[in-house]
This record gives sequence, C-alpha cells and structure tokens, in this order.
Amino acid sequence: MDRIALFPGSFDPITKGHESVVQRALPLFDKIVVAIGTNITKDCFFSLEQRLQWVEKTFESNKSKIEITSFDTLTIEYCRLIGAKYILRGLRNQIDFQYESNIARINQELHPEVETVFLLTKPEDAVISSSFVKEILNFGGDASRFVPTAIAADIIKK
Amino acid sequence: MDRIALFPGSFDPITKGHESVVQRALPLFDKIVVAIGTNITKDCFFSLEQRLQWVEKTFESNKSKIEITSFDTLTIEYCRLIGAKYILRGLRNQIDFQYESNIARINQELHPEVETVFLLTKPEDAVISSSFVKEILNFGGDASRFVPTAIAADIIKK
Amino acid sequence: MDRIALFPGSFDPITKGHESVVQRALPLFDKIVVAIGTNITKDCFFSLEQRLQWVEKTFESNKSKIEITSFDTLTIEYCRLIGAKYILRGLRNQIDFQYESNIARINQELHPEVETVFLLTKPEDAVISSSFVKEILNFGGDASRFVPTAIAADIIKK
Amino acid sequence: MDRIALFPGSFDPITKGHESVVQRALPLFDKIVVAIGTNITKDCFFSLEQRLQWVEKTFESNKSKIEITSFDTLTIEYCRLIGAKYILRGLRNQIDFQYESNIARINQELHPEVETVFLLTKPEDAVISSSFVKEILNFGGDASRFVPTAIAADIIKK
Amino acid sequence: MDRIALFPGSFDPITKGHESVVQRALPLFDKIVVAIGTNITKDCFFSLEQRLQWVEKTFESNKSKIEITSFDTLTIEYCRLIGAKYILRGLRNQIDFQYESNIARINQELHPEVETVFLLTKPEDAVISSSFVKEILNFGGDASRFVPTAIAADIIKK
Amino acid sequence: MDRIALFPGSFDPITKGHESVVQRALPLFDKIVVAIGTNITKDCFFSLEQRLQWVEKTFESNKSKIEITSFDTLTIEYCRLIGAKYILRGLRNQIDFQYESNIARINQELHPEVETVFLLTKPEDAVISSSFVKEILNFGGDASRFVPTAIAADIIKK
Repeated sequence: MDRIALFPGSFDPITKGHESVVQRALPLFDKIVVAIGTNITKDCFFSLEQRLQWVEKTFESNKSKIEITSFDTLTIEYCRLIGAKYILRGLRNQIDFQYESNIARINQELHPEVETVFLLTKPEDAVISSSFVKEILNFGGDASRFVPTAIAADIIKK
Repeated sequence: MDRIALFPGSFDPITKGHESVVQRALPLFDKIVVAIGTNITKDCFFSLEQRLQWVEKTFESNKSKIEITSFDTLTIEYCRLIGAKYILRGLRNQIDFQYESNIARINQELHPEVETVFLLTKPEDAVISSSFVKEILNFGGDASRFVPTAIAADIIKK
Repeated sequence: MDRIALFPGSFDPITKGHESVVQRALPLFDKIVVAIGTNITKDCFFSLEQRLQWVEKTFESNKSKIEITSFDTLTIEYCRLIGAKYILRGLRNQIDFQYESNIARINQELHPEVETVFLLTKPEDAVISSSFVKEILNFGGDASRFVPTAIAADIIKK
Repeated sequence: MDRIALFPGSFDPITKGHESVVQRALPLFDKIVVAIGTNITKDCFFSLEQRLQWVEKTFESNKSKIEITSFDTLTIEYCRLIGAKYILRGLRNQIDFQYESNIARINQELHPEVETVFLLTKPEDAVISSSFVKEILNFGGDASRFVPTAIAADIIKK
Repeated sequence: MDRIALFPGSFDPITKGHESVVQRALPLFDKIVVAIGTNITKDCFFSLEQRLQWVEKTFESNKSKIEITSFDTLTIEYCRLIGAKYILRGLRNQIDFQYESNIARINQELHPEVETVFLLTKPEDAVISSSFVKEILNFGGDASRFVPTAIAADIIKK
Repeated sequence: MDRIALFPGSFDPITKGHESVVQRALPLFDKIVVAIGTNITKDCFFSLEQRLQWVEKTFESNKSKIEITSFDTLTIEYCRLIGAKYILRGLRNQIDFQYESNIARINQELHPEVETVFLLTKPEDAVISSSFVKEILNFGGDASRFVPTAIAADIIKK
C-alpha cells in the first residue's frame, strides 16, 4: 500500500471534471483519498454532509481503491497524517495552472517529499466548474450533465 | 509491468531539471523510458551519440527501471509502440504550461488512452534549460552545476 | 432585424470603455441591447435605477439602434429570450481574456448557436474599469474623464 | 456592400478551425475576403498555388459571399485597398490572444478605423493548427479529420 | 534628498519577501517610505498598530533611509504629498505582474511623472505571501521562517 | 560613480520605446550604459555600425550620463566587467514579462548581486517593437513615428 494520493477540494458540488481526473489517475495509485477540506474560510453552498454524500455516491463502485473523507488542517499536513506521498490535481487551463502551481510551490517548500501530480482535464470537461454548476442551479437551469451520472438525478431535485 | 511512462525530449544536453523530474517520478511508474526524439526539425548542438551517452551516464545507477533510447516517429505513436500509457513532463513555469498543455491536448485528441502526467520542477531547477546551458558553454562559462553530477566533468571539457 | 447583439454587464458605473466598444460595434449589428444583469451576487455601489439612467443617457442619441434594459436570468438564456445571436464583449488585456473566454466557452457549451464577438478596447481605454472609477470616487478624486461625456457632470456630483 | 472583413493567414494548409471561424462569422458580414499573405518571411510547406486551391475548394459553395485571394503588402494596407473595415481572427487560447492582440494593437495604431473582430474557435477545434497538421503529415499520419471535409481526400494523398 | 520611493502595502503581516525587496532597492534611492494603506476595503487580520510595529521592527536598523508610516488616500496621491517620484513594487510571478502592471498603468494615467519601479523577488521568496503566512498561523503551524528575522519570535507567539 | 545600469539589446533598430525607458530611468542612475550585444545568434537587419550610430544619435544630448557601446559576452558577465550593479529592462506587456523574468531569474542565479530593474513602457509605446519597425520598412511604409525623433529622418531614407 505505497502509492497513496490525496485529491483535496471543496466539492461544492463534485463535477464530472473531478470524477474524470480521479478515474483516469486511478491506475497510477494504490489508493486515492478524496477529501473535503472543511477549514477553508469560503462559504459553501451545499452542506458538508450533502457534499460528502455526493462524492461517496460518485465513487461507490470503487470503494476498494477510493476513500472518501473530510479534513480540517493544512492540506500538506493531512498528507502526512494519512501517509499520502502525492497530491493529485486537475488542470483545466492556464488560470488553474497559475493558482495550482502557486499552491504546489508552497507545499514543496513546506514538505518537499510530497509531490503534486497534475493531469489535464478532458477537453469536454475544461469548462466545467463547481461555481458554474451552482450558477446554473441558482437560475433554475439544468446542470445535470455537468455532474457525475450517479448524482445527476439528485442535483436536478435541488 | 504495467505502468510505463515515456519521458521524451531533445536532451541537448540533459539538465539537472530533467534528471530531477525522472527521479521524483520513478516511484510512480514501473518503468520510465527516457527517449530522444530525432525527427524534430530543430538543429541540435550535440550529436545524438553524445546526447544518448550523457543520458545513459545520468541514469546508469537505475538501469532496472530507466530505459534509454531514441525514436523517429510522432511521440504519441512511440507510446503505442512501447506500450507506454503515460507521457511524463516537467513544468517550470507558465510558458512551459502553455506549450506543454497544447501538445498534451493534441495527444489527447489523437490517442485519448495515453495520459500526460505533469510534475513541477523543483524551485531551484526552475531557471535551468538546455538552451541556457548551451548559451553558457558558448561563452566559455561554467555550466557544470546545471547538469547532472554524473556528466558535470564531461560538460566542462566541451 | 437579424443581427441582434447583447452587451451585458453590471455597469457600476458605465465607463468610456463600455461606450466605445458599443459605438465601434454598432455598424456590425442591426441592434445592440445593453443590459444590466441584476441577479449577480456581487454588491453594486450604485442603484439599478442610477446605473440604468446613466446607460440611457450615454446612448440616448442612438435610440433607434441601441436598447437599454435589465435582466434577471443566465446571460445566455436572456439572449434566447430577446433573439440575440451574438454576445458582444470588450477585451482590455489578457486578464479580461482569461475571464471572458471561460464564460464564452461555457456559453458555447450551453447554446452553441450564440456567438460571442470580441473587440479590443481602444488603447487609451485599456486601463479604465468600473472598479477604478469607484475607487477614485471613493477618495473624492475626479473620475469624470473615465466615464462617458454625457454623464461626466453627474459623476462629479456623486 | 458595406461590411467587408479580411481573414488573412498563411493557410499552410487551411484547417477545420479556419473553416469554422469563417462560416460562423459569415452572417455578420456582407463579404469575407480570405487572403493568403505571401510576403511573410516564414517558409511555407505547401506552394501558394496549392494553398489557394485548397482554400477555394473549402469555400466553393459560398462563392457569393466569400472571396479567395492573395496579397503582398502589410495586412492593414490590404484592408484599405479592398475597402475592408474589419479584420476577422479566431482565438484558440491565451497564446493566440497574446499574439493576436499585439498585432491588433499595432493595426489600431496604424489605421484606427479598421476593427479587429475576434471569435473563439469551437472547443473541438482548439487544438488544431496548421503546424500540427504538417507535423502529422510529416510522419505519414492521417491528418484528414483536422482539415476541411472538402480537402480531406487531397491531404491524405500528400 | 531627491530619489524618494513609496513602498505601499497592507503588510498583513510583513514577509521576508517585502523585507528583501526594500533592502535590495535601498541603494537605488535616497529614502524609501514603507507605508501601510489603511483605506483599502479588504479586512485585515492584524491591527494597524500591530502591522506598523512589525514593519518598524523589521527596518529599525535602517532608520536613516527607511521611513515607516500609514496613509488614507489613493496611493498615487500619497506619492505627491510626500514628494515620492517612484513607487517600488516586487514581482513574484506572472499573476503579480498582471495585477501590478494594471495598477501601474492606472497610475501612469493619473500622474505620469511618478514611475513604478519593479524588482523580482529572490527565487526563494517567490512563494511567500502574507495570505500564506496567515493560513499557516491559522492552522497553528510555524510561519516564522517566512517573516523577517526581527519579528519571527513575535509571530510564533500569535 | 556608484549606480551604473546596463541597458542591453539588439537595437535593430532602436525605437521610441527604448529611448523612453532610458530617459525615464536616467534620474535613478549615475550612468546608463546602452550596449548592443553582438554575440547573439539571431541575424540582424541593420549592421552593427548603423545600429550603434543610431543609438548614439538618439542619446547625443546626454553624453555625460549615457554611454554607448557593444559587447560580446554573456550580459551578466559584461555587467561585472563595467561595474554595473543594475540591468535595466522595459516591459510592454505580459509576453515581455514572461521572457524577461526568465532571463532575470537566470542572472540572479549566476550573479545575485546584480539587480534587474524593470520599468513599464509608456502606454503609447506598448505596441512598438524593432520587429514591427522592420516589418513596416520592409513594405515601404513610414516607420518614422515609431523611432526616436533624432533618427526619424534617417530611417525614412532606408
């Protein structure tokens, strides 16, 4: 059980883009821990319980390799706690890269032994973001095709 | 022997940055194929033989997991040929990301089953490039600290 | 009456940059609908009435081709409602492009038949933004030369 | 016959991306002049005759609104010559924007009365470039799905 | 006493990066005024008194050339008030440049006689930001190595 | 004679942008050495003699503080040779910043005691480049307003 990766985020809500990055990264790792960071100051639209439930539903067919949880520390500290040597991140575009590379550089500074591994999103997922999904929901639009199939029906009811 | 990654490049010459990306990615893969693309139109400063020799010397203590070779096709075709499901790339900065993400998107389009995996260079390697090494050599400067330790003495003599 | 463009925004307040983009795009379209989106969560400094009044004053000499209004839906839905096949946007610089191209890509995904048409701002308008105007006003400075001539006197009194 | 746009380029060769930008811009203009600039210093892979022939074949069903030609002056001077008040450009990504906005700013400086109008490429065309097509051809690959349908068969034979 | 530079900021708290930029710029100027802008809408974590005290402690060995103060106007107006012909800014990366060049362009527009002078941060400081320091403090981590040595002990006690 | 800055370049030819950066930086330094690097591999359009003559003519009214020369080493080595503690660079836009910050980082690595000092070009100079001037000349256009007044008449005759 060596190659553990942390995939941290707010998942407010989880999107098709998140799902795809985890699925495509799965062969690279022995375990991926999808973890909702709860200490971030930003307000979330959906409750932690709701977000956790949707993440669990998304990956329930991969329970042997994907673990779902939440954490309340610095991301890099949580890696140490769970023995994750890798942080997994998806990149949609250059704005993502600017933001993500900055965080990864800070993490390199704090704990150089943890590597951040980046995958590009699939082209068709490059426009999807949790904010975008929330904006559509906010106007009563249909966001179901931007979230994992497993939770599409749930999202519509919101 | 499942997780094979291709690390393609000109390696004209190989730098400390290249070496570090391969070493840090090594635990993620069962084999990394470091391969010099010879079909690229751009003129190289060092001969293919010289470049291959330096790459081999750099990684000679890891012969079991690192394979050195050259290839003369589209990078993505070479992946198929050798059964590599991953292309490994290092990112120094945003200019690299612009260039690399463009190529990775093309490769996604051509063969979606091959994933490009990105690592950030270490901060101290972020300024090193083969062009920079060549420019220093060109002016008779000392480029030895920017190349792998194993070839530093060789580079000085050039 | 075929070529209708929507020019959406907060216009908090309208600037010389907004005015110039609309005026320069006017020959391309049969009608431009300048519309204040009122559903956006961000707080506005000026009231909707005040903002509408200034936009109207700015374009009052072009009433035949420019329509002023407000809307309370997704921008792309409003296009459908009014039969606009185009969204008009000004680009000042790369930061604008990152933001605007992301929104345009989302709109392409939602309704591919609506095209976003981009014009560059004029060089002298490239530094002007509503935020900048508000910051100057906030410190009691003179922002009159950054807003349309028609409302310059009104802005000073604020 | 008022709204004339120039769509300049090397078209070495024309791609699906070029074709799509012109087709989508067509309703905005009375005429689009697709013109191959022949004075640019860069070496072209295909002859001017070949490139012109492919551009003509691509748009032959729109002869009433699309004109094909070549020119040997500054782009902005050619606009004046043919009475084009607009330059049409497609944007795939931020690299394009950096390059294109710089040229558009120069043209604004030289002849402010000519507007550059930008459209985003369609998402699926965002990775396609003439260079990419040439690289595939160079390795004997199949580039037919990246060029206009009308010339796909011709490209394969090259 | 001619070459006066203003180094404005929130300094919430001052970091090693701020300190280094001021120290390296010192030979260029006769006086550098390090000034905390208090009018900015954003909420600060530390009180103005605390921030001022830390800035003073950081530069107390350079009292002859570095002046510490706070101000409550537009930055460019404050330059005029104190006779500063230069605004000094550090650049860590491209995100900084986008933000800083925009502000500098606005200042050029408002008062062209004031020049903004940019230095790059030192490579090892490129990841440090006040936000990052606050985030570490927030989780009870040790941020002492990211702030000036003179205040490291104080920060730990917070 | 302490504050010496090197302003290196190809100056093929010198533009209004170069002139403005030097003039605006002049109060900051005791001497600015404007130096044409002759070792760069890229081919120049104008001869070294011609380029030197134009640079000299541009700054001939400031002979006491501005020195004109050429050099044939690494830029950073030339700084040491002439005792320059500063490299002066102008930034027009983000593309410049990407390129210039990379070079400055390399120079920091090679000789940390030399600082690169950046000024923004004036807004009206942000589109001017030597390449642009050459392209206009190449087509027989009038480039005189993009070069220093002192050499405008000379350029027209070319």
